[in-house]
Parts: sequence; structure tokens; C-alpha cells
Amino acid sequence: MKHARVSYAGAIHNAVWVNGSIQLNDNREVQEEDVIWLPPVEPRTVFALGLNYADHASELEFKAPAEPLVFLKGPNTFIGHRADTRRPADATYMHYECELGVVIGKTARNVKREDAYKYVAGYTVANDYAIRDYLENYYRPNLRVKNRDTCTPIGPWIVDQSDIADPMNLTLRTYVNGTLTQEGSTRDMIFDIPFLIEYLSEFMTLNQDDIILTGTPKGLSDVKAGDEIITEIEGIGSLLNTIVGDEVFQRS
Amino acid sequence: MKHARVSYAGAIHNAVWVNGSIQLNDNREVQEEDVIWLPPVEPRTVFALGLNYADHASELEFKAPAEPLVFLKGPNTFIGHRADTRRPADATYMHYECELGVVIGKTARNVKREDAYKYVAGYTVANDYAIRDYLENYYRPNLRVKNRDTCTPIGPWIVDQSDIADPMNLTLRTYVNGTLTQEGSTRDMIFDIPFLIEYLSEFMTLNQDDIILTGTPKGLSDVKAGDEIITEIEGIGSLLNTIVGDEVFQRS
Repeated sequence: MKHARVSYAGAIHNAVWVNGSIQLNDNREVQEEDVIWLPPVEPRTVFALGLNYADHASELEFKAPAEPLVFLKGPNTFIGHRADTRRPADATYMHYECELGVVIGKTARNVKREDAYKYVAGYTVANDYAIRDYLENYYRPNLRVKNRDTCTPIGPWIVDQSDIADPMNLTLRTYVNGTLTQEGSTRDMIFDIPFLIEYLSEFMTLNQDDIILTGTPKGLSDVKAGDEIITEIEGIGSLLNTIVGDEVFQRS
Repeated sequence: MKHARVSYAGAIHNAVWVNGSIQLNDNREVQEEDVIWLPPVEPRTVFALGLNYADHASELEFKAPAEPLVFLKGPNTFIGHRADTRRPADATYMHYECELGVVIGKTARNVKREDAYKYVAGYTVANDYAIRDYLENYYRPNLRVKNRDTCTPIGPWIVDQSDIADPMNLTLRTYVNGTLTQEGSTRDMIFDIPFLIEYLSEFMTLNQDDIILTGTPKGLSDVKAGDEIITEIEGIGSLLNTIVGDEVFQRS
């Protein structure tokens, strides 16, 4: 089952995606053009992984990490499917990052690796844009790299964990204006999903609707206003996002 | 005016602290021993500053930063006044950090330094405990330093901005079991409140109830289960917190 959150006729609805249309939880069927897609859960704690694919670490000329590099993302950064991302006026290099999002299903503390999937509600697609200009900073990653408004589209929906036979063997792809620019497989993660759940839950509590963004494979390229970006993961979905200018934020 | 959030008789109430007692927003007056103090706002985006007092940076043998070192904190870490903080079983050195918390009052984007205080609702006291063991990590600060459950008491209340003549000239003090162990003044911040609001709002939106924890002065010491810690800031309040063991989290 594919679970979404949409804004329709002035209200926010939980919904499911069935046979190419949106069924609200009150059983009304509505058309995609009549809704605004929201992030499929209201983000609470969102963890993101840095350099969790060896080919991407090497592309950035970083050594692959010996333990997970995890940082938090603020709610200002999330938008849903088909929304616009504003390219910051101060960015000289902004790249997409297609990532598998793991959505936590229930309270998790001291979970062992072999039990980890019991705590997963499902999976979604994220595009965790990075503003490269500020990458090398005393605090990594600098907030300016990874916490800009609208710079993390997520969705379109969450696919139930039980619908994905092997989340560690899914192809990730990014298309910029229809051209394939990034391709990889979740099997190349350095720290896999069970490891991450064991690692995080060993020192803090994970809660329902928390999300772990598991990192991105190789394939960077700069994106500009007007570009249409699709990040997609096999069996999960395709997330469409459009880059727009940042004029709205010019200092008044 | 001092604005608190308390749990009383099975519900969460907004309240004010007047003449040593708690007045709920429905005008009932209740006694302190009958409530549980909560963080004075429901934390949304909470920013924290690293090394924002030169004497503290030098105590940690770090160079004072050339720009603000800002990281985010997750909601799992916050508790209210008079609550217990669990000292993680894996910690060999855990220290308190008395910090002035600046609470944002309205949406702020591209705010200039001279207008910054117009966006401040008020001030609170935080104790942003750090688990020193994981400080030197590729990602600074490691989540294990600054995002443990219950490791950021905040409160007891928010004092209105208009009640504090000069937030950049307040004494901060920490007492461990009644002994003064940390003392400093907000005037020694490297990046002051107007600078931080200008800096953050230049690349992202600050929203009502977001909090900026502005860093801590010199005066580290290790705390152990059973210790009673008071962090207090002149004109704002005294925040009491007790350290307990972490047995509840042993792997079952």
C-alpha cells in the first residue's frame, strides 16, 4: 500500500494511491491535479546520512567513514512531490541527492540488528539537495549545505515495509530534464538499514514517523532554476521536483 | 511576564508564574508541587551554538570560531524544569552547559541586525548537556554528544523580551549540589543575539517558537547520578535538574 498526505479542498488528508488515483481516507477518490502533495509524514526527527555510499564519498574526495555520519534536518526544509525548490541566491553549486527514506513505525530503543525491520513502517524517496559551497566547514555539514528552506522534497508516498522484499537491493536513479544523471543501488550503502537502526537506537529513542535518509550514491551535477528533477527508487516511487529562483528572498 | 507550560490534572496548560505561584490560562491558581513543568514551548527547530564564548572554546582547546557553529537538536532531548536527566551508561565525561535560550516570536527571513530584537518573543534558560567522549568526530558535534534523550532541560519559563533591558549583559551561573561551578556573562558571546538572527535568517526561515541556544561560558565539570544541577541566568530564572542513572536503557 502507498500512503500519502495531501492537501485537498482546504484540508489535509491522509490518502492512499491506488491504480493511478488518490483515495482520501474518507473514501473519496480525487484527481492528482486537484491536490497538493505534502511530505507523507509530518517530519519530527529526520536523520540524514553523510557519505553512506563509498562511490559518492570518493567523488567528493572524502574517505569513506568508519562509523555513520549522521546529522539532523529541520522542518523548514521539507516539501512534497511536485513542489518547487528554491535555489539559494548565494549558491554556486547545488546538487540533488536521491535517497531512500526509512520511516520508523514504532518506538525503538536498543534494537538489535536482527530485529530492526520490525521497527520500520515503510519507505519513501527523498531528494536531499546540498549547497556544496559550504561543505568544508568546522561543523559538518554546515546548516547552509543541508538546511535551506524547501531543499528536501520527500514522497510521493510511503510504501509499506511488507511490500518491499529487499530494501537493500533497490536501484536509485535521478533524471535532470529527462536525462539520467545518477544511478546506484541501495546494496552499496556502507552502513545498511539494520545497522543504522541499531546504531541510532543504542544512544537515543527513535519514534514513529521519524525518518532516516540513508545517503546517496555517486552522480553529482549542478541544478539551475527551471530544471525538472526526478529522483526515483525501484518499487518505491518517482518524486518530481522543480528548481526555481530565490528572488522571493531578496532582502527588502 | 513569565510564560510556562505545565502538565496539571491530566492536561497540558499554558500558564504564567506570578508571585511564586502558577496561574493557568483559565485563571486557576495551582501549586508548584501539583504540576509537571514542560519545556516552555513545544520545540520545533532548535538551533544550538558551539564554542560561542571564547573562554569556553579555549577551555576545550579549540580555536574560537570565525563564523557561528550551529547545529540542530531533536525533540527527544528536551525536558522541563525539575525533571530528571539520564546520564548515558557509555559516558565517561558529561558536563552541563548553562545557556541563554532566545525564543523567536514571529517569522523571520533576511532580518537585519538592527531589527533583530523585533523577532524575539523572549528568553529562557537551557542546560545543554554534552557527552564529551564523542566530541572529536568527523561530524561535529556527533549526535551522541548533543542529542541524547532528556539531556537538554529548558525553562522554567519564557520571560518576555520587553522585561529584559539588555540580554547581552546577563550573568550565567551553574551550581552543582549547591556549589558554584560555572560563571560568565552573555556579554562575552562571540556572536551576539542580533548577529545570530541576521546570520540564520539570511539563509533560512526562522519561525515562531524556534529557539536559539546561544552557547556556554567556561566552567566544565563532570556530573554523576544523584547530582542536582541548577543553571540560572540573571533576570530570567533558575532551572533545576537532577541526574539519574541510565539503567532503564540497558539492552534487554
